[in-house]
Formats: sequence, C-alpha cells, structure tokens
Amino acid sequence: MSKPAFHALKPGATIGILGGGQLGRMLAQAAGQLGLHCHIFAPETDSCAFEVVRRATIADYADRAALDAFAQDCDVITYEFENVPAETAAFLAARKPVLPDPQVLALTQDRLVEKDFVSRLKIPTAPYAAVGSAGELAAAVKKIGLPAVLKTRRLGYDGKGQAMIRKGDDPLKAWRSLGEAPCILEGFVTFACEVSVVAARSRDGKVASFDVAENVHRDHILKTTAVPARISAAEASKARKIAEKIAKAFNYVGVLAVEMFVVKNGRERHVLVNEIAPRVHNSGHWTLDGCTVSQFEQHIRAVAGWTLARPMRLGRVEMTNLIGKEANDYAKWLAIPGACVHLYGKGDPRPGRKMGHVTRVFTK
Amino acid sequence: MSKPAFHALKPGATIGILGGGQLGRMLAQAAGQLGLHCHIFAPETDSCAFEVVRRATIADYADRAALDAFAQDCDVITYEFENVPAETAAFLAARKPVLPDPQVLALTQDRLVEKDFVSRLKIPTAPYAAVGSAGELAAAVKKIGLPAVLKTRRLGYDGKGQAMIRKGDDPLKAWRSLGEAPCILEGFVTFACEVSVVAARSRDGKVASFDVAENVHRDHILKTTAVPARISAAEASKARKIAEKIAKAFNYVGVLAVEMFVVKNGRERHVLVNEIAPRVHNSGHWTLDGCTVSQFEQHIRAVAGWTLARPMRLGRVEMTNLIGKEANDYAKWLAIPGACVHLYGKGDPRPGRKMGHVTRVFTK
Repeated sequence: MSKPAFHALKPGATIGILGGGQLGRMLAQAAGQLGLHCHIFAPETDSCAFEVVRRATIADYADRAALDAFAQDCDVITYEFENVPAETAAFLAARKPVLPDPQVLALTQDRLVEKDFVSRLKIPTAPYAAVGSAGELAAAVKKIGLPAVLKTRRLGYDGKGQAMIRKGDDPLKAWRSLGEAPCILEGFVTFACEVSVVAARSRDGKVASFDVAENVHRDHILKTTAVPARISAAEASKARKIAEKIAKAFNYVGVLAVEMFVVKNGRERHVLVNEIAPRVHNSGHWTLDGCTVSQFEQHIRAVAGWTLARPMRLGRVEMTNLIGKEANDYAKWLAIPGACVHLYGKGDPRPGRKMGHVTRVFTK
Repeated sequence: MSKPAFHALKPGATIGILGGGQLGRMLAQAAGQLGLHCHIFAPETDSCAFEVVRRATIADYADRAALDAFAQDCDVITYEFENVPAETAAFLAARKPVLPDPQVLALTQDRLVEKDFVSRLKIPTAPYAAVGSAGELAAAVKKIGLPAVLKTRRLGYDGKGQAMIRKGDDPLKAWRSLGEAPCILEGFVTFACEVSVVAARSRDGKVASFDVAENVHRDHILKTTAVPARISAAEASKARKIAEKIAKAFNYVGVLAVEMFVVKNGRERHVLVNEIAPRVHNSGHWTLDGCTVSQFEQHIRAVAGWTLARPMRLGRVEMTNLIGKEANDYAKWLAIPGACVHLYGKGDPRPGRKMGHVTRVFTK
C-alpha cells in the first residue's frame, strides 16, 4: 500500500496517540490548548491519559479491528513511547500518516542499530561491541575492557535490561542475568555530567532545539533536571548540534531527545551520545513551565504540519520528579512559592513509578 | 437539608463543573495538571470543554435526574459562569459542596444587588439608581444626569442588555429597547483606563490576588489585556485591596474578578468598581503563560481545599483575544516568536465569539 497523503491539520482535527501514560497525557493537553482533539489508544484500562480526552480506545496493540477504527477516527497518528510494535506501526501507517515515521522506531528500538547509526554520523559514543554469543562476549570484554555495562539491545528502560560487569566479575553470569538476550557491551564512562537535548523537526525540515538540560539520575531513574546545564557555551552548542544533526539524519518529524555524557579525558572534555528517545522526554518536562513553548506543544505542532515555535526560556529552571510515594507529599510542594506542581492522575504510587513532577522557574 | 460536609480533595478526586465553554475547558485542563478529574455538565452538545475530559453530562440545568447523577459522581462542584439558575445551584448544594457558595450567585446575578453590596463595603462605584418604572426612570435620570447607561439588572454580558442615553435622547425609548426589564441607570464614566484584578480566596480564608491587568474592549468585548497596568503603585495597591476586600466580604472560595475604572476627577484619580464576576475571567487568561500559577489552577486549588499558590509574574505580559474569524489567522500567530497560542476548539467562528487567545511574555 502507498503512504496516505499528509496535509497540515486544521484546528478541530484529531491526533491519535499510541500510549496512555503521562507523556501521552501531556501531549493531549498540549493538543487541546491548540484546539486539536486527541484520541488515545492504549491497552491498560487505567491509562492516565484517558482522563484528559473525550475519545479513547482500550485495546491491544495487535487488535487490528480496534486499530482500524482508531485510524479512521484520526487525521494523523503519533506515539508516546518507542516500543510501539513494528506491525502496529506498519498497519496504521498504511491507513493514516504516522509521525515520526515508523522507520525511526526500527532504528531506536535496537541499541546496536542506534549506536551504529550515530557512529556513521561521526558523532562520538562510548566504545561498544555487539554480544550475541559467549564468544562475542569474550571478544567484547577484551576489546572494551572493564568495567563495562552489558545492555539488552531491545526493551530496556530506567536501568532495566542492564548489568554492570566489574573487574573480576564473570561476564557470562551477567549475560545470563539478562536471559542471554542479544546485547551490546558498552565501556563504562565516568562522566562529568549527564545532559540531554530535546529537539524538534517540522514537516518542512526546520529544526529547533531547547536549551541543554543537566540530568541527575537516582536508581537509574531521572530525579532532577536543571537548565541551563553547567557546561561551557561551546559544549552546549556541540550538544545541540548533535541533537539537530540526528533529527535531520532521521528525516524526523516531531520531538526527540538525545541523552549525552560530558566526559573528561585528561584536560579535554567530550560530549558522547548515550541514547536517543524518539519521543517527548522526561528531561524536557521543564519546558512546560520554564519556556514559551513546551516540548509537548512543539511535538504537536510538528506532527500537525504546523510551524515550530522558537523556544524562549523564561529563567533558570529546576525540575524534580515525584517518584512512587514521593507524590504523597504533593501538599508540601503546593505550598512552595513558584513551584509548579504536575500530578499525572495515576492511582497506585508503586516504587519507581513516575507519579508527577515539580518545576521551579527562577527569573532572576 | 443541611450542607454536605467538605473535606480537602485528594488527587484522583472529581470536580464537577457547570458550564462547557472555554472557561470550563481551561478549568478542567488545570485540574488535570493537578491530578484531579473533571466532570463537565452543560446543555450544549458541542460544548468545547467536553473535549478535554473523560466524563461529561449533556443535559438541561433543570434536569433533576441528570443533576442528581452528576452530583453523585463529583466530590465538589463549581461553575464557569455566573448565571447558573438558583434552583440548580440549590439542588446541587444539598447533595455536594458547591463552591463558590451559591449565595454569591444571588449577589452577582443582579446588578443592583451587586452595586448595593459594593457600596455597603464603602467601595466607590459610578453613581447609579434603580429603574423599575417610568417614574423611577425619570427620577434616576434627574439624579444621575446624562449621558448615562441603562443596564438590565440580570443576564447582561459583552455589552448585551445595555443602552446608552445621551443628552436629548428619550430615556423611555432606551428602556423600551431593553424590554422594560428591571434596570439600573449608571452615570457614564470617562475613564483613564479600565483595569481588573483576579483574586482567589481559599477555604481557610487566605487571599491571593494577581497583578492588576489593563483591559481594552472593542465592541463591548475584551480585546487585549496588558500586565502590569499603566497605573501608579498606589492605584494598583488600591485595586488589589478592593478585590481582596470583596472576596473576604463574600466569604468567597475560588477565583473572582473585579472590573474597575480608573477615572480622572480634576487632578485626582479614583478607582471605581464596575462589575464583579464570580468566576475565572477573560482578563486573567494572561496568567496561563505569564505567571507561575494560572487563575484556573488557583481556582481549582481553592475549591479542592488546597493551599493557594503565590502568583509570581514572569515578565511584562500581553494577551490578545481571537474573536470570530480572527481565529482563522492562527498560523500567523503560531509563527510569532514567544507567542503562546490558545484555541478553544469551537467550531463556528461566529462574529463576537471568543475562539481563542494569544499571550506574549516579555522577560526583559
């Protein structure tokens, strides 16, 4: 089947969103602000995105009848997570424009393919090697050295699907702990700081990136983001150029995030790409309150075929995730002057679950 | 029936909103940000607020079965417009807490009662007199002088229900044009500027007002708001104190707006109250992008029994309403750097219909 034609949406048109978590929820809220409607498709009956839209489909991503009806109701379809099954994306893309293009999913769902893609763009990454067998694992350890991190090629997030291998550890044991799934071994990087850039690309090829954010993780989950990152202007410029280059190389439409490490090598500092997320990203939540346009609005503008906004930061910004039971302290946050509290409307504050976030903007 | 008990809501609770226009819509969006659910009750099938919530009731305000089911689904009920029928408010208030208290509706639905209330607080207004008969009309004209404005006591908005009486005009003709409805005659005021203050009061009696906004009307409809208003610090302080005093006198819970005139009398300038709106208000839309808390969030916090936020303005702010076909220019606005575009998702851009607004924040 040929691809369905794409026309810029008009207010009142409907954007379909695959995925019903907080990212889909905040995308729908941004679309609402622009007079666009959203239809959320998600399998989980308690998806928090359902609460902020009129139309929702609760069905499995393999349910073709449900997907077909969903596609008929939508003018363009996007997604809030990178692990959309390839068959789902292809089925929908034959019926309605799916943006970003599903080919990007194929590139980013596999850490090895993604790293190879980035390397071909001559963008530096940590040293890495493919691990598909015990022999390859031994060769990879020899090539990369230890400590190193073994990561499954697919379906890892928030530290899941990863195992650290230190000197003296048995690499095979680490691989077994990951079910001997296809992996990559990455050199362990001691970084000066972790940063990320959220960038958007429009249908007509314009690119706009947000200011570089500095991230702190706790237990492999993003805990805080501060903007601007405490890096040099040259490093910030380099980080933004990397994200914009990747967006262009992907022929991307929408918002993506590139996580990077700033590493110190003797007296020099380098920016290495760690990971690409083909979607709005937790490290961009600060834009909701700290910028004249949010990452969510920027993504909606892009997939609607509208012009991108030029992001203008309103001050120094700090974002703090409320994880698990931390969200029970919402009243404390509500009382802090200038704190903008976002709660995602999720029921159970399970450990590690992102329940909300708080942004503070300092204009002076 | 005694009043139902009120407890501060927890995230996940449901706020009922009477009215499905853009104010209800933006209230629901603010509630969503705080992890609260909304149920919209409105008679119009195409109410734009329906698009941003999961639960909606389409029914007449006199439909007791629908009101009863609505009340059962909600933890607290509020409204987006001041002309909620008294019977509707009373019916709901017997079942669930209704905030602001419906007694405020009785005070603000009638211009004469409202003006008398304000006067008793020793807050200045334009001179006014009640008109219920031809005799009272003649006496009022004699007392107030001409030019003057005849206004129906009830159901006026955006210049509807008003007639100007100039010198030489026949006052009876003006009254007949308003169907000889009960009216008040107000002295015509030549103002230096029109300002408004949006203020919030919490369940525990704390009051927080936003910075004074300066408004420009066109064809009796708000066209632009600029913040801060170009008035002296003393005048701004006086305007805020007036709004806060009214909120306290009402025992108000939620957000209200007080429209005022700054009038020049020889070398002195005075602040006169024109009108009170017991709800979020168009002249407070700038807070969505220009302040650390919006009027919508502040209202939701108040009716949820939560602490108010301390509003911190992010810079100089300009808000422009998109009225009728002006909304068709949305693409022009999207392209302006720093412009935050809000479209309400209404279908038909009828003349005079508020279709959206644009805010610009200038941080320098």
